[in-house]
Amino acid sequence: MSRRGFVKNSALAVAAATTPLAAAGAETRKKELFVHHVYFWLKNPGSEADRNKLIEGLQALAKVKPIRMAHIGTPAATNRSVIDRSYAVSWLLFFDNLEDEEIYQKHPEHLKFVEQYSHLWEKVIVYDSVGRKQ
Amino acid sequence: MSRRGFVKNSALAVAAATTPLAAAGAETRKKELFVHHVYFWLKNPGSEADRNKLIEGLQALAKVKPIRMAHIGTPAATNRSVIDRSYAVSWLLFFDNLEDEEIYQKHPEHLKFVEQYSHLWEKVIVYDSVGRKQ
Repeated sequence: MSRRGFVKNSALAVAAATTPLAAAGAETRKKELFVHHVYFWLKNPGSEADRNKLIEGLQALAKVKPIRMAHIGTPAATNRSVIDRSYAVSWLLFFDNLEDEEIYQKHPEHLKFVEQYSHLWEKVIVYDSVGRKQ
Repeated sequence: MSRRGFVKNSALAVAAATTPLAAAGAETRKKELFVHHVYFWLKNPGSEADRNKLIEGLQALAKVKPIRMAHIGTPAATNRSVIDRSYAVSWLLFFDNLEDEEIYQKHPEHLKFVEQYSHLWEKVIVYDSVGRKQ
């Protein structure tokens, strides 16, 4: 075998040996998610106008760069004893990791959102969790 | 134009006129999500063994058919005043709609999970919300 052929075949052998592992690593990283879930209770719980204003603010905020996925929700029709449906708006974000969530926390758009809209809410509860997509 | 030609061209015109709308409709439906988020507090909050047992049960449950996405998490390192990090396990599910969530609630695998694992938890809070991915 020529030297060039040997180098080429060795490179292929290395690629064959390492690519599945590398792919598995990438797959694991892809499944790892930082889940940031915020529930908002309004100062005027019955005000649809205030709820819509808050949702508008969140829709703009959803465009902030390190956010991988954003979902804006309102309480579903389900109503069992363990279900808390007293909040007005649910704001669910996926990040790749804690670092990205910290970038979001300090992002000028996020600070502007808090400044412009925090007069609307009475209370927020935040649940941050780390783990994997199944 | 022959009748056949006319029918064919009309059909194409109708397809051209309706497909973008149909696609937009499909896109909207794709973005609509029913978000079911459950937080578990253990009877033995300090028991890593109990937490792992519960996670094992959830990992099996994640395979139930109408679930579109499942994420199993534990509290992140973030620790601000608005963050509740007292729970042990976060169980986040996406469904296409309320009907699919109801299928999941009544699914034999879900009932079996509650039967086998509910002795582990002290409290659950569920937040169900409907809305759109942004």
